[in-house]
Amino acid sequence: MRNFGVLLIAAGLLSFAHGVTGAAPPATSPGSQAADGLRKPVAAAEVIAASAPSDWMPLDPQNTLYVELRGGRVVIALDPLFAPHHVANVEALAREHYYDGLAIVRSQDNYVVQWADPEGKRTIKHAQHTLPAEFERTSRGLPFKPLPDPDTYAPEVGFSDTFPAAVDPKFGRAWLVHCYGMVGAGRDNDVDSGGGTELYVVTGHAPRHLDRNVTLLGRVVQGIELLSALPRGTGTLGFYEKPEQRTPIRSVRVAADVPESERTELEVMRTDTATFAAYVEARRNRREEWFKVPAGHVDVCNVPVPVRPRTEGAQKTRASHQ
Amino acid sequence: MRNFGVLLIAAGLLSFAHGVTGAAPPATSPGSQAADGLRKPVAAAEVIAASAPSDWMPLDPQNTLYVELRGGRVVIALDPLFAPHHVANVEALAREHYYDGLAIVRSQDNYVVQWADPEGKRTIKHAQHTLPAEFERTSRGLPFKPLPDPDTYAPEVGFSDTFPAAVDPKFGRAWLVHCYGMVGAGRDNDVDSGGGTELYVVTGHAPRHLDRNVTLLGRVVQGIELLSALPRGTGTLGFYEKPEQRTPIRSVRVAADVPESERTELEVMRTDTATFAAYVEARRNRREEWFKVPAGHVDVCNVPVPVRPRTEGAQKTRASHQ
Repeated sequence: MRNFGVLLIAAGLLSFAHGVTGAAPPATSPGSQAADGLRKPVAAAEVIAASAPSDWMPLDPQNTLYVELRGGRVVIALDPLFAPHHVANVEALAREHYYDGLAIVRSQDNYVVQWADPEGKRTIKHAQHTLPAEFERTSRGLPFKPLPDPDTYAPEVGFSDTFPAAVDPKFGRAWLVHCYGMVGAGRDNDVDSGGGTELYVVTGHAPRHLDRNVTLLGRVVQGIELLSALPRGTGTLGFYEKPEQRTPIRSVRVAADVPESERTELEVMRTDTATFAAYVEARRNRREEWFKVPAGHVDVCNVPVPVRPRTEGAQKTRASHQ
Repeated sequence: MRNFGVLLIAAGLLSFAHGVTGAAPPATSPGSQAADGLRKPVAAAEVIAASAPSDWMPLDPQNTLYVELRGGRVVIALDPLFAPHHVANVEALAREHYYDGLAIVRSQDNYVVQWADPEGKRTIKHAQHTLPAEFERTSRGLPFKPLPDPDTYAPEVGFSDTFPAAVDPKFGRAWLVHCYGMVGAGRDNDVDSGGGTELYVVTGHAPRHLDRNVTLLGRVVQGIELLSALPRGTGTLGFYEKPEQRTPIRSVRVAADVPESERTELEVMRTDTATFAAYVEARRNRREEWFKVPAGHVDVCNVPVPVRPRTEGAQKTRASHQ
């Protein structure tokens, strides 16, 4: 960053991506409050920087998974509201160490990575091999904050707690949607052939055609780059052709079972607050100087719910896997 | 693939992704034609397998770039219909070897990779440093095949030749859209500060909020995995913090300047044919056995325009960067 050429890139792209990463939120600007007390439109990073502690909620250690890879830890927030039986089964599988020693067997560009038992020799002691599908649920009693813009695939999209979701009000149904970083349970042709023994993570453009065809059960909130930057498998569908190309899974643990000193303490922005509404608006109409034509709309998968370390608070806010 | 466990994954996921990759198209099935002569709905891979030579068009070597990296060649189809001056300038930069020896300086997860002159020392001989923005153009006289489904961001989306594009009929304007694999010219805050010296490639969920804010000029049609699987930079916005982390760019050449024997001969599916319309329909409503709830809709960025080697024809069809 020592000369004009690189400064030009940095300057241009810093504003280019503010709020996409939330990586370098500026301090709250006095300019974000007009002199007459009316709030001016602000950028996403400013919304995050100005948020209150009550705008955030910690991850529930009972519904958080740590996937330990050679390169580090992937943290997954599980969603028992949409997939209660799959979440319980994945936790049971983790607790009997079913996943330990398995491997990432597949990385398909712009689509998914997936882990599984490559030799098919692992036995299950207490958990279930398969479960009835949890593709959707009733929308009754569900927390849901819709976005204002039309969606290509669903009547309404928005957020249920901290997860991207869709609702069909006519039929009273709701489902999680396949945004980047979402985690699901692979299945065979039979809809009830999943259960969590093989999990996949979306690492490309949202494959929304999978919605309601497979059980989603959570999302990666930290460490997605340990999965998304893996070499692509050269076999059909991105399967690795040689065993040594696979990435070993050292262990998968429920956070509550890990000593507190070894936990990754994260908090996620609540989606039922005025702060989140301001964040959505900042994503709909980007106010950073770089942007000239605000989009006026936003895709549910372009609203990454912010995640940050609990201990560091607003000083080091990070947007989840974006 | 020797035991039940792995067969189960393969069986389930083969149908899971047919047409996403087009990686293993089945032979045209007799079952795709009903006995009474009426066509049954077919899967995307079947549409591709049954296509005629006239459904495809070769890449124009005058508007094709080869980016040579240590790991192989990235092929970019340029679009002079939307960005004539940027395309001409990028070709001029390639012809004076401006890019040779530059580096990929940035890989930001779920967003973009970008190459540039990291030291800012390179001089330009004949090409332009910057150009007026080419964010949009008139829709008059433009080839454009709209998709039938609503889009979150634009009044109409579809394909202009082989590129994903949007149209606003009310104002008679058209623009390329930021799908996975699209290539654009980085710029500073001034809209006319780009020109092609720094190119970026979308490697994540479509950042459609960039549409009409930056000049798109082409798309990667082969070799995207050489960019998308790069380690993410750990600096702000995914910049690499150490020079040795950057990926060197050996050279960038216009295909027409490369001896024919060294070219990558590809052809792209035309988008103005009944075959492409059938392909779109197959993407809107997936007919593979694995799918239980056809989406009934499709996002423009979930319709990867198929690309395949010219010499191998339908035997080895590949979908671009999907």
